[in-house]
Amino acid sequence: MSHIKTAILGASGYTGAELVRLLSLHPNVQLKALAADRKAGMAMEDVFPHLSFASLPVLQKIEDIDFSDIDLVFCALPHGLTQNVIAGLPKHLRVIDLSADFRLRDGEDYAYWYGHPHYAPDLQKKFIYGLPEFYRSELKDAHYVANTGCYVASALLALLPLVKHKAISFDNIIIDAKSGVSGAGRVAKENILFSEVSEGFSAYGVREHRHSAEIEQELSLMAQFPIKTRFTPHLLPQNRCILSTIYVDLAKGQTAEDLHKFLLNHYKDEYFIKIMPYDEGRKMPHTHYVRGSNFVMLGVSPDRISGKAKIISVLDNLIKGASGQAIQNMNIMYGFNEETALQQLPLYP
Amino acid sequence: MSHIKTAILGASGYTGAELVRLLSLHPNVQLKALAADRKAGMAMEDVFPHLSFASLPVLQKIEDIDFSDIDLVFCALPHGLTQNVIAGLPKHLRVIDLSADFRLRDGEDYAYWYGHPHYAPDLQKKFIYGLPEFYRSELKDAHYVANTGCYVASALLALLPLVKHKAISFDNIIIDAKSGVSGAGRVAKENILFSEVSEGFSAYGVREHRHSAEIEQELSLMAQFPIKTRFTPHLLPQNRCILSTIYVDLAKGQTAEDLHKFLLNHYKDEYFIKIMPYDEGRKMPHTHYVRGSNFVMLGVSPDRISGKAKIISVLDNLIKGASGQAIQNMNIMYGFNEETALQQLPLYP
Amino acid sequence: MSHIKTAILGASGYTGAELVRLLSLHPNVQLKALAADRKAGMAMEDVFPHLSFASLPVLQKIEDIDFSDIDLVFCALPHGLTQNVIAGLPKHLRVIDLSADFRLRDGEDYAYWYGHPHYAPDLQKKFIYGLPEFYRSELKDAHYVANTGCYVASALLALLPLVKHKAISFDNIIIDAKSGVSGAGRVAKENILFSEVSEGFSAYGVREHRHSAEIEQELSLMAQFPIKTRFTPHLLPQNRCILSTIYVDLAKGQTAEDLHKFLLNHYKDEYFIKIMPYDEGRKMPHTHYVRGSNFVMLGVSPDRISGKAKIISVLDNLIKGASGQAIQNMNIMYGFNEETALQQLPLYP
Amino acid sequence: MSHIKTAILGASGYTGAELVRLLSLHPNVQLKALAADRKAGMAMEDVFPHLSFASLPVLQKIEDIDFSDIDLVFCALPHGLTQNVIAGLPKHLRVIDLSADFRLRDGEDYAYWYGHPHYAPDLQKKFIYGLPEFYRSELKDAHYVANTGCYVASALLALLPLVKHKAISFDNIIIDAKSGVSGAGRVAKENILFSEVSEGFSAYGVREHRHSAEIEQELSLMAQFPIKTRFTPHLLPQNRCILSTIYVDLAKGQTAEDLHKFLLNHYKDEYFIKIMPYDEGRKMPHTHYVRGSNFVMLGVSPDRISGKAKIISVLDNLIKGASGQAIQNMNIMYGFNEETALQQLPLYP
Repeated sequence: MSHIKTAILGASGYTGAELVRLLSLHPNVQLKALAADRKAGMAMEDVFPHLSFASLPVLQKIEDIDFSDIDLVFCALPHGLTQNVIAGLPKHLRVIDLSADFRLRDGEDYAYWYGHPHYAPDLQKKFIYGLPEFYRSELKDAHYVANTGCYVASALLALLPLVKHKAISFDNIIIDAKSGVSGAGRVAKENILFSEVSEGFSAYGVREHRHSAEIEQELSLMAQFPIKTRFTPHLLPQNRCILSTIYVDLAKGQTAEDLHKFLLNHYKDEYFIKIMPYDEGRKMPHTHYVRGSNFVMLGVSPDRISGKAKIISVLDNLIKGASGQAIQNMNIMYGFNEETALQQLPLYP
Repeated sequence: MSHIKTAILGASGYTGAELVRLLSLHPNVQLKALAADRKAGMAMEDVFPHLSFASLPVLQKIEDIDFSDIDLVFCALPHGLTQNVIAGLPKHLRVIDLSADFRLRDGEDYAYWYGHPHYAPDLQKKFIYGLPEFYRSELKDAHYVANTGCYVASALLALLPLVKHKAISFDNIIIDAKSGVSGAGRVAKENILFSEVSEGFSAYGVREHRHSAEIEQELSLMAQFPIKTRFTPHLLPQNRCILSTIYVDLAKGQTAEDLHKFLLNHYKDEYFIKIMPYDEGRKMPHTHYVRGSNFVMLGVSPDRISGKAKIISVLDNLIKGASGQAIQNMNIMYGFNEETALQQLPLYP
Repeated sequence: MSHIKTAILGASGYTGAELVRLLSLHPNVQLKALAADRKAGMAMEDVFPHLSFASLPVLQKIEDIDFSDIDLVFCALPHGLTQNVIAGLPKHLRVIDLSADFRLRDGEDYAYWYGHPHYAPDLQKKFIYGLPEFYRSELKDAHYVANTGCYVASALLALLPLVKHKAISFDNIIIDAKSGVSGAGRVAKENILFSEVSEGFSAYGVREHRHSAEIEQELSLMAQFPIKTRFTPHLLPQNRCILSTIYVDLAKGQTAEDLHKFLLNHYKDEYFIKIMPYDEGRKMPHTHYVRGSNFVMLGVSPDRISGKAKIISVLDNLIKGASGQAIQNMNIMYGFNEETALQQLPLYP
Repeated sequence: MSHIKTAILGASGYTGAELVRLLSLHPNVQLKALAADRKAGMAMEDVFPHLSFASLPVLQKIEDIDFSDIDLVFCALPHGLTQNVIAGLPKHLRVIDLSADFRLRDGEDYAYWYGHPHYAPDLQKKFIYGLPEFYRSELKDAHYVANTGCYVASALLALLPLVKHKAISFDNIIIDAKSGVSGAGRVAKENILFSEVSEGFSAYGVREHRHSAEIEQELSLMAQFPIKTRFTPHLLPQNRCILSTIYVDLAKGQTAEDLHKFLLNHYKDEYFIKIMPYDEGRKMPHTHYVRGSNFVMLGVSPDRISGKAKIISVLDNLIKGASGQAIQNMNIMYGFNEETALQQLPLYP
């Protein structure tokens, strides 16, 4: 089996570190370069001592990397910066981008949500949307992949099959999402200090949030109909994972149990997606059931009010919502077994 | 000013301890008896060492209390047990009950949700519903008070004024509520062990939950129209507080800013209720803003989808959702200043 | 009873906020000014929304405060900055300083530990060391008070009575101390981000730490003999409180139970200090027993190795270790009842 | 390479679940049976939903297991029960026991610390002490292995090489140890409820603790001299890991840097043990650096007081302190590569 040579840009963030951690168990991948501009010259183990048990290249500036010896780049840079960096990379490189920069297919959408025109609109068109369970065939030959956002993956994996089968109304979809703090990254900001987060809970972006654009883009594409959702992100006093509580109205003639069957059937061959047994809402997914893994769990419950249902979706934001998903995409792109390096079971407690 | 003599039944639980803590600063209350059947004979400081700095009566069995010397009983016993205990108390005692036993006004409702007929249906009729901001005049002369539940208070304080003014549609009200663990009480159960809760998040009672009955009873009464809600409780990895994210449809002609004005106006004389300034959903309540206090914070945000709004409500489940509310009710019943012993500001961080 | 007019310098930090919270219940204190240079002009409730339930002056720059109308200043500024600020204040002001700037009595000690000569050496001599249980009589007339550090208070309250009575050896004292994160202040630093602290534990300043100088100064003064200690601070994944595990060698002829008696006797009239009953190390202090209060708990245990003992000391670093202690000092300075505004029982859970 | 067939007794506890999780990545191990008496008949995924992504045998009673088809038993049962169960197993089975039942080599020691004579004293003599780094050659042919305790491993891995080289005094060794809550197991007890543990810290077993017997046994064996230690266990508000702060007196002529060199040299070929660089106590191990892995980190710091040093040791109590260590022992016993299934890097954050 082939070996590929990779670089990680943005290796000093949590998703960068998570890529290193997961790739360390991948038999077909060689980690050739790690870039982190402000920390260039440092050993990775001085930035992330938990990685000191691996043998890793020293951090470099992006411009110092010899890309002629690299096949694939994971780009884990901040939003905004990313589009310029990727536009400047040698063209032979395949790229998996973990930022939001290339997720929105429409330039006007991008401009509305990010407050400026896209810097690389032509490149944007070349990106394949990296939700593996729904874009597997396109991903096989992809040169550029835009990893799905963590909140977005949590919502789409629950809703796309139901929208596809018109099992739910396209109106009145509510996604009440709760995320661990690691989603905010490793940046020294007052609002994510331990004392500001611990023992407390809050919502943010309550009026509107960029992630809804990505959710609605994919739902609307699937529905061939413009779908709007009401989305509220919240910050949990925990490090990892997202749980989305999704409220839907059933399409005429459908029951909650039907939704459950659609999901079960749709994902029956998906290694990473598990549907909880249908038992009237008693057993539903807990973030503990997926933490530290690339797995997703979905549960469906009827609602007391007839004609309505609730779906709960959980995933680890840093793995299935970011670095694990990126590796899954890579496995598809290179024809490796899709599960490679992603078979670790959840860490509990 | 008068002094009253009180007893706490169920003093070995968290709400019992919280009553002791708060009453220790009340100048008009004398704590005469503490009851906890299984721990009768123990010193309170052996059950709750954080209370060892107060001088407290030894724990007794309920039947050993000399009620002739008591004016008021706080009943912090488990649901179910409570109705029998209160039915057997001497009739001169005024009672504030923190359990759910006397909250539902309708016997059939009670039987549906609790699986058996009420044991004391006549007594049930004598109870005043203890939400102080809405039942103040009835509470003044109340002999029996049924304290509002913690989730319920969080929802009702946000919704009742809006229902009253018909500012929102009576359909499509969704209450996505998140609570700290102390709401589950001090009972050795596997599902609330530290390792089962910490670093994780989950929903429960997803199909239906008893608290919706109480929410709907009060909303319907206010509306003079049967209101149904979709309610989902979740368990946060933190000790205290509830945050409810409430999704509403606006009544015709109303805006989110109108909702904000209704709340502001409705609560303008309420010491314990604060409405966050209206700024399009940017600043919204955090549970940190009320923890350790009897205060409530409400915030209103418009929704991207026109004709809809979001309301966020926070309170400390053990104080405004239980023991603080009980003391506020007591203050009303006895003509004390309503804020007495409840003026402590939130503890942060 | 008299009223005093106070200002808080450094009101945007955690100890500043805690002063505001506690003083809000003090009947003899009027809060006239709050200073926070970078946040001057902001409302306190925008900096600390949990304080929005109080009526507070707007934040100012220090130089904009009219000190002619102020009696007492609480100085909660960072170390180093403090000495210059206090040196520049009008001389009529009594000052309680919460920083470390005026705790070390000896200029050379200060220079060694802080890396530069003291900026206000003459002023340093005028400060009374603010450990109320040991300097009460000096504090009554104090014009300048240097509040004891939080780690230091935790160690000294356990050790000073034993050193005084020569009940322990002056050699081989080990203080293994663990603190909540709030001790690091409200400063956006990577190492105190939620994700860096939560679910983890570490030591810092392992070779040496400034606080040992303060501990040793006071122990040596009491012993009239130079005492050295081995001190290791650790960071707990929790917000508040310090627990110190102290290892001592017994003086000849002494037993652990003797130590217990010395402590019990020494503190028998101290409202804020409680000694756990002696029961061979089974019941020992937990930080939960004091969180949110100005109380201290001490416990003594024998050691398996004869001639040795262990002492455990707990306090809330932001209250008895900082703002509560400052108010206790103020109460002494002004002849108020020493417990005023400090009688709140611990918040638990 | 050979395949072995294993059973886990006590599969419904945290160490049992952790064995399942780790073994799922072991290419030479087949998991044939899972036993958990009270939960016999249940699917493992109903007991531990995070394991629902693996294909696992249904839980059975021990007596229902067909041991004729099993090569190796992991015994993760409670202390006390274990000795009877193992005594009753078929003799062809190799056994790795994670309990404390067979760790003490001396029957009188056992009787003193556990309050009753050992039930299987002859069997006790056949056990090899399972600390892989020190008993590797004996483990190769071991039939019965007594896994080292988690606290004990944390202390011994730091101290044994220093005792061996007489680099430290055999007197005055103090081990101040802090453990995550998972060490207390998955048992519904009030003292490990979330609300009792979270946001708090405490010591336990302060006078004496069973683990000191195991520590002293091994240190004394190595020293060929009876060594006593002062050991204090504490409970951290986190799930996993142990950090031990160890205070030692240097042997004559030794420096802290010498200790560092002894450790570095002693462990130079050990895959799982990392010594932090010597830099005067600035960089020391954090539990985050090993969580979720079988790795250990050790750091050495000089002490301000000459002739003394501090050592800090961290490991994951459920992995290197229990299930990972057991698998490492199994790898040695069966001649597998010692790192097999244990190469996962720490999970952070």
